[in-house]
Amino acid sequence: MRNLNQDNITQAVIASFSQTADPRLQQILISLVQHLHAFAREVELTEEEWFKGIEFLTGCGHITDDKRQEFILLSDVLGLSMLTVAMNNHKPEGCTEATVFGPFYVKDAPQYELGADIANGAKGTPCVVRGTVKNTAGEAIPGAVLDVWQSDEDGLYDVQHTALAQAQARGQLQADGAGAFHFRSIVAVPYAIPHDGPVGAMLQATGRHPWRPAHLHFMVQAPGYETLITHVFRSDSDYLDSDAVFGVRQSLVCDWTQQADGSYLLTYDFVLNPARKG
Amino acid sequence: MRNLNQDNITQAVIASFSQTADPRLQQILISLVQHLHAFAREVELTEEEWFKGIEFLTGCGHITDDKRQEFILLSDVLGLSMLTVAMNNHKPEGCTEATVFGPFYVKDAPQYELGADIANGAKGTPCVVRGTVKNTAGEAIPGAVLDVWQSDEDGLYDVQHTALAQAQARGQLQADGAGAFHFRSIVAVPYAIPHDGPVGAMLQATGRHPWRPAHLHFMVQAPGYETLITHVFRSDSDYLDSDAVFGVRQSLVCDWTQQADGSYLLTYDFVLNPARKG
Ligand SMILES: [Fe+2]
Ligand SMILES: [Fe+2]
Repeated sequence: MRNLNQDNITQAVIASFSQTADPRLQQILISLVQHLHAFAREVELTEEEWFKGIEFLTGCGHITDDKRQEFILLSDVLGLSMLTVAMNNHKPEGCTEATVFGPFYVKDAPQYELGADIANGAKGTPCVVRGTVKNTAGEAIPGAVLDVWQSDEDGLYDVQHTALAQAQARGQLQADGAGAFHFRSIVAVPYAIPHDGPVGAMLQATGRHPWRPAHLHFMVQAPGYETLITHVFRSDSDYLDSDAVFGVRQSLVCDWTQQADGSYLLTYDFVLNPARKG
Repeated sequence: MRNLNQDNITQAVIASFSQTADPRLQQILISLVQHLHAFAREVELTEEEWFKGIEFLTGCGHITDDKRQEFILLSDVLGLSMLTVAMNNHKPEGCTEATVFGPFYVKDAPQYELGADIANGAKGTPCVVRGTVKNTAGEAIPGAVLDVWQSDEDGLYDVQHTALAQAQARGQLQADGAGAFHFRSIVAVPYAIPHDGPVGAMLQATGRHPWRPAHLHFMVQAPGYETLITHVFRSDSDYLDSDAVFGVRQSLVCDWTQQADGSYLLTYDFVLNPARKG
């Protein structure tokens, strides 16, 4: 401990975790330190670069509040979010695939009756969304609970409108006894993830755009089933092949059809995976 | 891009950096993503654990301000700071070794004349510090500038005393024409790094203590020489073999001798490395 150098310090840090009560925490920290040190060694990180990293993380922390989550954005644009989702959602054939959670979910969103207009004043072209929640046997899941959230036609979620007190284009609904749901909202459009902070500066410096293809977020929950966190994407959207957060699955891309009156209709059925037994 | 999974997402993220203008930034980000993903794969990170990580970083960001730097503390306790220092300070035999910068340095500290009491009211046992700044040929470096900072006898730096407006136990001095310096301060004591935040919670959960052995921080600068950032440790201190931030070098451990009047004397010479030619 009195003569640690670049070759033996990693072992010393690992040894410092030997008294960790929770073996899982110990495993995670040991792996984290090994990979963090391996990264620093591989690039021969300079002290100036180290300090830029400190400043970057500090900037992420300072722009983060209850409405803005820069660390989730960072995880998203580095593909860590999608990697974690992929590793934890090995669902059987036929189940709806999961994708990234994103930073714009809000707990305790307003509850709506089936058929309600969850846009609640959000600007955009009207859209009806309908479908059924089923299991892999094709059986309806009565009473499944759906959280839905999306941006408005300016590409902003309600929480990004600082002057806005009420939820817009966001709500919770319960499927009926046949697992069916329907509601009104607005049509999703591509939007840029918040890029006025450190993550945006990183995208800029790397020549990456901040855009996501048009999508509607869903979280679908029912007793006895794995919670499904996913999106439904618009098949005619830009950026399906360059999603800034790597979240597109072909199985989640769907036609949103324009109706005679100019409004849109999206029909999508969700197939849930039975919960793993504890 | 429409069917990324846990096996091919890393390549997709790496490819997204292909337009990065600065090749060094590109190299760093590619390495970072590879190691970050390798970590997540190795531990099979769960979504709940991922979210705890997001919360941890958010907590670090929110406790960080102009006086508290939780990300540096995090880097310190994970050994990343000392690793970076070790990699970047391969100094020739005979040079004073470098160690961690720490989070308590303050730019533009008050300037003192040689012989001044930089304690400036900080509580502690009086201590005289003296020495010479030299090069590897043993020649004095006239006019070398020394930044000095330390905690008080309660183990707190001035910036940790929220009610304190003026600098205490912190200052900048200039060596004389013979490279010699001397000043008065207080004797260093072991202290606990700030552990009321996320990093402290991590230390607690891993059974690690937050203590550092008694030390005095120095930054020594002179034209034509590498800036030296280091500590001088007390040879009779606790925690020399379990420094919370892995910063002890045996060559920096020194006897601080108690005088007849109870005060202390520390004598330490610094040997600077010539600056690398640009
Ligand atoms: Fe979204
Ligand atoms: Fe210190």
